[in-house]
Amino acid sequence: MQRVEKEIARLIKEIDYDEVTRLFEKLSGGKRLRAKLVLKIASDNEKASLLGAIVELIHAASLLHDDVIDEASTRRGVPSVNATDGSKTAVMLGDILYSKAFSELVFFDEEIAKIIASSVTSLSKGEMIDVKMANDFNHNEDRYLDMLYLKTATLIEACAKASAILVGKNSDSHALYGRNLGLSFQIIDDILDITADSQILGKPSMNDFVEGKCTLPYIYLYEALDDENRKKLIALHKKTMNEQESAWIKQKMQDHNTIEKSFELAVKLSNEAMSVMKNDTELVSILQTMIKRSY
Amino acid sequence: MQRVEKEIARLIKEIDYDEVTRLFEKLSGGKRLRAKLVLKIASDNEKASLLGAIVELIHAASLLHDDVIDEASTRRGVPSVNATDGSKTAVMLGDILYSKAFSELVFFDEEIAKIIASSVTSLSKGEMIDVKMANDFNHNEDRYLDMLYLKTATLIEACAKASAILVGKNSDSHALYGRNLGLSFQIIDDILDITADSQILGKPSMNDFVEGKCTLPYIYLYEALDDENRKKLIALHKKTMNEQESAWIKQKMQDHNTIEKSFELAVKLSNEAMSVMKNDTELVSILQTMIKRSY
Repeated sequence: MQRVEKEIARLIKEIDYDEVTRLFEKLSGGKRLRAKLVLKIASDNEKASLLGAIVELIHAASLLHDDVIDEASTRRGVPSVNATDGSKTAVMLGDILYSKAFSELVFFDEEIAKIIASSVTSLSKGEMIDVKMANDFNHNEDRYLDMLYLKTATLIEACAKASAILVGKNSDSHALYGRNLGLSFQIIDDILDITADSQILGKPSMNDFVEGKCTLPYIYLYEALDDENRKKLIALHKKTMNEQESAWIKQKMQDHNTIEKSFELAVKLSNEAMSVMKNDTELVSILQTMIKRSY
Repeated sequence: MQRVEKEIARLIKEIDYDEVTRLFEKLSGGKRLRAKLVLKIASDNEKASLLGAIVELIHAASLLHDDVIDEASTRRGVPSVNATDGSKTAVMLGDILYSKAFSELVFFDEEIAKIIASSVTSLSKGEMIDVKMANDFNHNEDRYLDMLYLKTATLIEACAKASAILVGKNSDSHALYGRNLGLSFQIIDDILDITADSQILGKPSMNDFVEGKCTLPYIYLYEALDDENRKKLIALHKKTMNEQESAWIKQKMQDHNTIEKSFELAVKLSNEAMSVMKNDTELVSILQTMIKRSY
């Protein structure tokens, strides 16, 4: 990963604006999941570290804009750029990082560049659909999963597919792996928003629902409830809840096993990804670690 | 230009999201200066209309984000997207248009793709510098012109240069033409902010200075004033002015010919561009029309 960090530092330096360097250094790099994936698949290729750096810049830019859109005050446990330097700065920094990443894509074949660039259109579209969906209580599972695919999975899918093409591996199976990794990762994230301690999350528990986001455990709960309780659930949507109200939702989720049901889908998607990658122990281990995260 | 409009419509349709189509249709397309420039230089090439469409999507995206950053309520005489649909929507729509434009750049040679993509990094950087500069009264002409180059001229320069490469014309002279066209265009825009009727502008006169932007006529005025009047000028910076105060500035600008001086620089830059393009009557006529706009 040092190769990727060096490439990222080089690209930021090339932007040649001290304000950008200062702001970028303040960002927590996170787990660099996307770059790690690129390196695991395509480490033999000399351009793998550049591709890893590009996707991390894209991911950082998307988070900057996400935080503006969600009005998030923290990101990965540190104050978000929109909180410390204002949302305008976060928008501008995101644009700079996006365009720098795209400028570097020209060093790759047309197919690879197109896969990565298109995935950014998908993720921006997914973000817009996510925001629109949060206006009402959405209880349509397919609609939710389509949005999740666009918003979270397409970039990871693109990373896996593009890296496979870079080294002549099977692009279809790697794309499926990346897509399912992204989907199950996000489903588990959605579960953790309900089950994890707010101290560990760095944000209040059940924040998604308060923001209007009906993740799978809420969708499955809606399906399981009778009309009266459905009304009660919908009445809590997009509201700041008191302890009694959130305890009621959690109890009902427990009664109807909706967390388990959501987790089962994550496991199913993850197993599907494992089955196409069964000979690649490293890629399989990424999935296993990710699934374990939920306990 | 119909070729370009068809290409733009095709790209928007490919994004395949009715909300994007709806929002994009609400935007005023403007004069399509950048696409016209591409067509004038590279009309012989079949890819010219795609390149024209790409740069117009980029320009539209940059305006969407600019309006969020400047909190502008109108754009080209119609309400801005941030005013009608919120700044979050404007950020997301901008991201979608940017990434769609970048996805299409893969169909061009590396050199052309790089020129266009890098210019977006420059313009985003220019936007950031512009915002930071507005915090204080900037009276440094070079600093101002450097920012203007990044924010306004780099994309036009990139359009001219990339189009020239597309058809094997001289890229250096076309780049100079584009750069100077962009710079003089913006200088005249800055002058019009002071001299034009607010009804025609669609925004209050001297809006730039109220927002903190010290354009050339203000910079030259600062240079010409004595200490006491400089203090008076600085005291009005970034304030909503009454009629007497704005009349005072306009009077002082007249006394010291700072509008004329700014205009002279625009003419000088424009003449430089004409001299390298003297055999291309169409490109010369664009400059002449632009310069006339100021009366």
